[in-house]
Amino acid sequence: MAAALDVVGIGNAIVDVIAQADDRFLERQGLRKGSMQLIDAARAEELYAAMGPALEMSGGSAGNTMAGIASLGGNGAYIGKVSEDELGRVFAHDMRAIGVRFDAAPLRGGAPTARSLILVTPDAQRTMNTFLGACVELGPEDIPAELVAAAQVTYLEGYLFDPPRAKAAFQKAAELAHAAGRKVSLTLSDAFCVERYRAEFRALIEGHIDILFANETEITALYGTKDFDAALAAVRGHCEIAALTRSEKGSVILAAGATHRIAAAQVAKLVDTTGAGDLYASGFLFGLTHGRDLASCGRLGSLAAAEVIGHFGARPETSLKALAQQAGLL
Amino acid sequence: MAAALDVVGIGNAIVDVIAQADDRFLERQGLRKGSMQLIDAARAEELYAAMGPALEMSGGSAGNTMAGIASLGGNGAYIGKVSEDELGRVFAHDMRAIGVRFDAAPLRGGAPTARSLILVTPDAQRTMNTFLGACVELGPEDIPAELVAAAQVTYLEGYLFDPPRAKAAFQKAAELAHAAGRKVSLTLSDAFCVERYRAEFRALIEGHIDILFANETEITALYGTKDFDAALAAVRGHCEIAALTRSEKGSVILAAGATHRIAAAQVAKLVDTTGAGDLYASGFLFGLTHGRDLASCGRLGSLAAAEVIGHFGARPETSLKALAQQAGLL
Repeated sequence: MAAALDVVGIGNAIVDVIAQADDRFLERQGLRKGSMQLIDAARAEELYAAMGPALEMSGGSAGNTMAGIASLGGNGAYIGKVSEDELGRVFAHDMRAIGVRFDAAPLRGGAPTARSLILVTPDAQRTMNTFLGACVELGPEDIPAELVAAAQVTYLEGYLFDPPRAKAAFQKAAELAHAAGRKVSLTLSDAFCVERYRAEFRALIEGHIDILFANETEITALYGTKDFDAALAAVRGHCEIAALTRSEKGSVILAAGATHRIAAAQVAKLVDTTGAGDLYASGFLFGLTHGRDLASCGRLGSLAAAEVIGHFGARPETSLKALAQQAGLL
Repeated sequence: MAAALDVVGIGNAIVDVIAQADDRFLERQGLRKGSMQLIDAARAEELYAAMGPALEMSGGSAGNTMAGIASLGGNGAYIGKVSEDELGRVFAHDMRAIGVRFDAAPLRGGAPTARSLILVTPDAQRTMNTFLGACVELGPEDIPAELVAAAQVTYLEGYLFDPPRAKAAFQKAAELAHAAGRKVSLTLSDAFCVERYRAEFRALIEGHIDILFANETEITALYGTKDFDAALAAVRGHCEIAALTRSEKGSVILAAGATHRIAAAQVAKLVDTTGAGDLYASGFLFGLTHGRDLASCGRLGSLAAAEVIGHFGARPETSLKALAQQAGLL
């Protein structure tokens, strides 16, 4: 059956609270630069009180990816759990306003909508501190079978391993997608997240994942190696396609014995790397669901990532479709 | 008595909800480009549902001005009314996080924190649609005498004429400031706002205002003329200093018979003009409260305005102090 949707993304529905900070602030607060750490409500209050003025913007890894796909002209849906509060309304509005289907009923009377306190240092690195809030309630009952069956690709973020019941949602979505003859894609999200769940990630990848996204630290964490080439060799054969990003060194795409090396796109001024991997996945999955060859998928990924790291915030400010057309990629 | 504070700003405490839109969207929604219009809660819901994905950021005209003064290294306080809700906590956090004193107790159980739905068109113009929410509760009881007496300048935004009881707060603040031997400053805010309250504005300026800020459309609206030079002639003598901004044509400062013409600062890429006037006032008032001559005050104003129109949002992304030092102005 022809798919009505290009991609359905499943993730932690998060509003980002983005502030600038210097390295000393990270040190004083005991934060690991470049990582995502989970925090509870009390710590979120404390860190928020200590940090600088912020801007609020819808985020969440898979949410950002879906925003990027919509910006390229793609057709998608998103599954994630917000609460019935102001930030939840912001998240839902932003998703729908970009044309991404988002039907999930908000949680009533429970935890508030998730937020990630994101500190951007002058080197453009981001350090994320996420209070999961309502996201912990996401479970298999939130995965509508018809939505997953309607999408060419079901895209899952690795961060979903953190909330307790989302793994079951994960599993259910992957099974539904394969039963409908669709593809399943995963991003590893964060090296520390990979370390928390290494065995489970490997089992999931070997059993269920067709298209894997990871950056260099994540893929090496997955295989417990420091050597990128060793990780490449290990992942080859475990999934149909692996798209591995290496920041300014571009990306490497492995598929059926072939290896494609894609350069990073030029960035006039690097401001905030938040969302770089998420947007690479946007471009790649848009290309893949529109019949492009893998090298073109990688170039679309590089273009989308380059847009988002040139400004604060993890979702595009500029039409990616227009940028891709200007670059001759669409 | 030496002042403990440079400036105390009084204004509508607003969180901005900033989205991109095209001219057709403004037409379809019946919006006047470049203006601020007041909307009620139902219209705010309707317009929000129709507009694109947004980012949320603390705003409010005088709030932005105080943020700019803090970014220049100045010392200020802010008076405005938020509600005890998520956006109110965001507003208060951002004010305190930049080092601006903000002590007002939030409104409990009343209207929500004000928001302005700001549509930025590709020409970088902003069209603002403000739901005043909790701001309508600001009254003279919210003006602490000691705070006003402690500041070299009390700065008032013209938008305060819209909520019903703020005029009395306005009046009280001006009287307290003058009784303490301080200066009172006003920005006219918006040409349509000036037209709504022309007679009252003129009486206020003639009776109470030492330092007036206005742009070309506002000052001509105030005197019911289309001729900028006629407006200049009319305002001269009505207040000690008038600083009149003219977008890319820079600004004109009138004081005690002298006229200073200041060029606009260079902007690499004009993105969003929201906050241009507010930040001009930041630079000007910072200079004035730090003993600079009027031409230097104007140049600091131009520099601060140029920073804020180079990105989305009405508060500086970059340290204005550092920028002013680089430019040899501090």
